[in-house]
Amino acid sequence: MKIVITGGAGFLGARLARALLAQGHFSVNGAPAQPIEQLLLVDRAQPAPDLLADARVKPLVGDLNSLLVEGPQGAPAIPSGTDVVYHLAAAVSGECEADFDLGMRSNLAATEALLAACRKLGTQPVVVFASSLAVFGLVHDQPALPPPSVITDLTLPTPQTSYGIQKFIGEQLVADYSRKGFVRGRATRLMTVSVRPGKPNGAASSFFSGMIREPLAGVKGACPVAPETQVALASPGRTIEGLLRAGQATDAEWGPKTALNLPALVTTVGEMAQALEKVAGKPATDLIDWTPDETIRRIVKSWPGNVQSARANALGLLPDPDFESIVRAYVRENADAVRLQTL
Amino acid sequence: MKIVITGGAGFLGARLARALLAQGHFSVNGAPAQPIEQLLLVDRAQPAPDLLADARVKPLVGDLNSLLVEGPQGAPAIPSGTDVVYHLAAAVSGECEADFDLGMRSNLAATEALLAACRKLGTQPVVVFASSLAVFGLVHDQPALPPPSVITDLTLPTPQTSYGIQKFIGEQLVADYSRKGFVRGRATRLMTVSVRPGKPNGAASSFFSGMIREPLAGVKGACPVAPETQVALASPGRTIEGLLRAGQATDAEWGPKTALNLPALVTTVGEMAQALEKVAGKPATDLIDWTPDETIRRIVKSWPGNVQSARANALGLLPDPDFESIVRAYVRENADAVRLQTL
Repeated sequence: MKIVITGGAGFLGARLARALLAQGHFSVNGAPAQPIEQLLLVDRAQPAPDLLADARVKPLVGDLNSLLVEGPQGAPAIPSGTDVVYHLAAAVSGECEADFDLGMRSNLAATEALLAACRKLGTQPVVVFASSLAVFGLVHDQPALPPPSVITDLTLPTPQTSYGIQKFIGEQLVADYSRKGFVRGRATRLMTVSVRPGKPNGAASSFFSGMIREPLAGVKGACPVAPETQVALASPGRTIEGLLRAGQATDAEWGPKTALNLPALVTTVGEMAQALEKVAGKPATDLIDWTPDETIRRIVKSWPGNVQSARANALGLLPDPDFESIVRAYVRENADAVRLQTL
Repeated sequence: MKIVITGGAGFLGARLARALLAQGHFSVNGAPAQPIEQLLLVDRAQPAPDLLADARVKPLVGDLNSLLVEGPQGAPAIPSGTDVVYHLAAAVSGECEADFDLGMRSNLAATEALLAACRKLGTQPVVVFASSLAVFGLVHDQPALPPPSVITDLTLPTPQTSYGIQKFIGEQLVADYSRKGFVRGRATRLMTVSVRPGKPNGAASSFFSGMIREPLAGVKGACPVAPETQVALASPGRTIEGLLRAGQATDAEWGPKTALNLPALVTTVGEMAQALEKVAGKPATDLIDWTPDETIRRIVKSWPGNVQSARANALGLLPDPDFESIVRAYVRENADAVRLQTL
């Protein structure tokens, strides 16, 4: 069993890699699980040392688009014999809004090239495509396009960011490549992942982690939207669980070729702050900087808060029970990044 | 006012060109209508002589993708000063199902390149994108994706052909290029156009015209689906009316950046045959060959019959009143192709 993860040195990619290595085996479309012999981590960055130390891990460092589009300089990103591809690599929402061409290249052209490379294998590999909640762009000023009160797997996405458009196009390509039998597509819409460890990134959603992570580290964390802002989120653990299940679902379990919504905990930014206070007290919430940012607010306002996930639920996937448990899991897993005393 | 029509030598393209030349003026986003000075018809074929005879018409013969993607050999497909682009050129559904790469190139890559060329103009040209009813692919074997009983502008398209996927991706690109202010996008979903004159083409929907046109010409015409098959169609005249209105709608009239359904006459193949009989008697319907074709039937079954068009209606666009009027218009406009006596 040979598996590729694009974006394999990123936060989710690395966590997925560790989960796959720990699991050791992988089942494709209901066949008996086979040992994972090779895990190729394609990324612009080197994987973490603990991953490199595993004999099954092979790093491929470079720009995915260059590796796929401009012809392999040496090792191909999708080597022959690949059974499963997790396509996580992407330029994030804020970057794509600021630089249209970057998004078209890193998200659209790269996904087109990746699918073409998978098709060329001729072995119908599993392709788990990480799409996003960001495909759902709510519009608040168009009577002909009223914002739906609830988002289901059957809701029409109307993306309001280039990132969302590119992800939604990726879903369509995965669906058609699957229908044609070129790949076994598993397009999954990730919810906002919180709490991410590490540093802020260029995603407009970055503050959903930063407003918890930074205060726990004893420094100011920005929350540029109002407390009543609704958000559909999932912990890193539940997100990885969803990706693992998607990759190992049978064709029949998966059902339609369209993307499915991974489970979401529907909460508000204010409730997130309250959960933080339960875990680390007022010293933590005093470090949240509520200065509004109109650009971020406008993007986030176009993302839906109230998301349902019937297809994912039918696969046995459930949302996190509450945000406090997410904060406590973060504290447990990232003890060295937590400076405040927890309660 | 400089206008480009891709697919400008095709049936709809030529008819649109004649309508534009007859209209003489064109209004962009509510500005006073300006005289049409140049109409560039980009196509692999030469335009008809009557069009070439008009001093305003300029032909550009070649493969659109080559003209756009591989750099202009001589005149560019989207010259500087272009105010309006009607993007009709496409490989049709049957072709794209048989040849995946053809569709990806002629429909997807060409649309990407066309939008990039329009963006490069820097003048936010109007782009009317001819999308299609074919984006709506009904699935009949997936409980998680029940076929909707009625299709509206807000229904989630789940294309079941590569052609439909490529058109739906085109809609997304037009939406994002519009949101970014690169173009004024007007993505319009054309219904099945019937009765088309001329010869059958590679579209799976070709028989919706052939079953009327061929008998009227005194030869056998195939109808490979059952009489009760529902179809959402529009006459060539109403289709052109829709394209003209879309191109001249203001941003406010147009509303959302997503595609809208042009008006559809919802009828059945059996009712179409009855209308033919009213116009040309039993000698006509005796010439319909009802031999089933499973491939065509499967594709057509995935297209919805019951289509609503609220946004188009709000623009003042209405469906044809009945199919008999469509057949009579065909007879009137194509007298030299009609051999049977009409009643």
